[in-house]
Amino acid sequence: MENGHGGSAKTAGKVISCRAAVVHGPGEPFVVEDVRVDPPQNMEVRIKILFTSICHTDLSAWQGENEAQRAYPRILGHEASGIVESVGEGVTDMEAGDHVVPIFNGECGDCVYCKCEKTNMCERSGVNPFKTVMVSDGKSRFSSKEGKPIFHFLNTSTFSEYTVLESACVVKIDSQASLKKMTLLSCGVSTGVGAAWNSANVKAGSTVAIFGLGAVGLAVAEGARARGASRIIGVDINPNKFIKGRVMGITDTVNPSEIKKPVNEIIREMTGGGVDYSFECAGNLDVLREAFSSTHEGWGLCVILGIHQTPRLLPLHPMELFNGRMIIGSVFGGFKGKSQLPHFAKECMNGVVNLDEFITHELPFEKINEAFRLLVDGKSLRCLLHL
Amino acid sequence: MENGHGGSAKTAGKVISCRAAVVHGPGEPFVVEDVRVDPPQNMEVRIKILFTSICHTDLSAWQGENEAQRAYPRILGHEASGIVESVGEGVTDMEAGDHVVPIFNGECGDCVYCKCEKTNMCERSGVNPFKTVMVSDGKSRFSSKEGKPIFHFLNTSTFSEYTVLESACVVKIDSQASLKKMTLLSCGVSTGVGAAWNSANVKAGSTVAIFGLGAVGLAVAEGARARGASRIIGVDINPNKFIKGRVMGITDTVNPSEIKKPVNEIIREMTGGGVDYSFECAGNLDVLREAFSSTHEGWGLCVILGIHQTPRLLPLHPMELFNGRMIIGSVFGGFKGKSQLPHFAKECMNGVVNLDEFITHELPFEKINEAFRLLVDGKSLRCLLHL
Repeated sequence: MENGHGGSAKTAGKVISCRAAVVHGPGEPFVVEDVRVDPPQNMEVRIKILFTSICHTDLSAWQGENEAQRAYPRILGHEASGIVESVGEGVTDMEAGDHVVPIFNGECGDCVYCKCEKTNMCERSGVNPFKTVMVSDGKSRFSSKEGKPIFHFLNTSTFSEYTVLESACVVKIDSQASLKKMTLLSCGVSTGVGAAWNSANVKAGSTVAIFGLGAVGLAVAEGARARGASRIIGVDINPNKFIKGRVMGITDTVNPSEIKKPVNEIIREMTGGGVDYSFECAGNLDVLREAFSSTHEGWGLCVILGIHQTPRLLPLHPMELFNGRMIIGSVFGGFKGKSQLPHFAKECMNGVVNLDEFITHELPFEKINEAFRLLVDGKSLRCLLHL
Repeated sequence: MENGHGGSAKTAGKVISCRAAVVHGPGEPFVVEDVRVDPPQNMEVRIKILFTSICHTDLSAWQGENEAQRAYPRILGHEASGIVESVGEGVTDMEAGDHVVPIFNGECGDCVYCKCEKTNMCERSGVNPFKTVMVSDGKSRFSSKEGKPIFHFLNTSTFSEYTVLESACVVKIDSQASLKKMTLLSCGVSTGVGAAWNSANVKAGSTVAIFGLGAVGLAVAEGARARGASRIIGVDINPNKFIKGRVMGITDTVNPSEIKKPVNEIIREMTGGGVDYSFECAGNLDVLREAFSSTHEGWGLCVILGIHQTPRLLPLHPMELFNGRMIIGSVFGGFKGKSQLPHFAKECMNGVVNLDEFITHELPFEKINEAFRLLVDGKSLRCLLHL
């Protein structure tokens, strides 16, 4: 086949009819229905999704928590893995058959951010919750049987047997890697491990506190463990999370509902003044305040990973920053997806990071509503849907 | 003489009677009166002040802006230079006759902060506006002719012919350096230049915005210029500040009272998206907000130098930190005083940083009230008082 034009699949250049889980209104059950997926245009890739899972960002988009982001009908989903079906014009770094992972925070390689080593933002294909169509022509590649457009989500829309993405949002990975596990690199694990490695740069022997032990929080623990942190304190109000946590590197636990003092006081007592790094994975400002105050004065670094939908501002006084504590945000773990994820995938294959514990449930794609229920009820870390 | 014990001065070990400018109540004129200065105790140093100047921290302490910090009678002053008169027991790194600069943010060398390269905090002798007596015995070394104690200020109390400091708060400098100029290293110039060098680590070719062009802001400009910043934008509502600013490295100016758009919009237009570094030297949260928003998304760093007396919290939403901008505080320019200021003094002697422009006025010590008036009226950058 000719690279960068079409691909070898019989379907290349044609509209594909397939099944997708479409959401028609905020909080309405997903309807698995037939949709049409247009061929990829210039610098786009069409991929066949093999596995997809569900993350809290899908949950809040499904529930329509942020009014400005509501757009229906829509195909959600952003954590997945699959195989390239065909590529659009100009795409030279992938071809049909390649194993790939979609990323919601793309890397065009050309913009001022992509050319700066300090950031993983991307002007053209970076994370944008308001984006509902493709950049090149402002249109959707999805439509209903009746020909009505169905909106894209977060550069990815992986709740579909086939989806079209900008090539900046598709990462080619080693064909020997388990695609099941690589699904996790699409969002949660990269976000957590990367926050520890790239954003905080956790050092061996250091101390860490993680607030919120969902998949992202546990990925932070796994990243900190891999870096040799000597103490990893997990904080959660659900003690069931500690069971998994201890398997994944958590050395100490604090349950805020079982103590009488503020969490930060407990942690500062436990660690002789505070941890070197804290990670807020709860999306709650009161928790964020505790995470900040749990770090050691002089050098403590608090990393925000949680999504804060509240209009409330940071609960910090400017003079508190004079005590040497720092606070930063981390998106997609600071990874530049296209250039850095292939290496991270290899490290996962080599066992540097252990992905085995993250997938707690597996279901057929048709049971997507059941999978959402598991996440809402806090029963699953990641439920993998098989397409 | 024997190092670390006494010193050669005839006055060593004895109470010294001398003149000091004492403040007896918030905002009351300074009274230059006779005081008694006790000999230095264990790990303390008594120095003869030759020059002292006035900084805004003296101003707000004089005015008693922060109620919790009010303590009278008191000897203010923290920016100065002088000569060691005698040293107390255990002091081995200085002796009588040494040229020294007092520092309000000491470096004991032994605490967890002093041993960490990431911070210039100090557990024992760090900046502490609430401290009014010496650490070793909880007493003041100053008293009135009638024997009543007079409180210390900010580890230094330099508005006196003689003062006693913990040795952690005294930096020995090259005897060839101009003591007049070295006075500036005691606070303002180190704070500004250090913020550019240590806290922000300004790179050659980068862009900088400075909000508030007092001595500290101009020292930031001088530090950024010395580092090779390509563009240094000065922001002030007093256009007179721009005259001096342009001499000291400011390449562009913005006067918020002369524009219709927010300053951050102007600066982002001027710089193609924002500056690499911004410095807030005004102690005003609305200005801080502008300084933060004036930096480039993805890597912009906002450094807080201003003292924010307001109870208001940071005017930032947590999700704004996801855009890759960072905000940090800087105290004493991030310099570890005792270990790093001697080298900085040499760089000043070598002309790396130009100190000539900072001293705008000189007056005899007795005219201290006049010197305060010059600062209040915004007429002086630094008024040097000769003792």
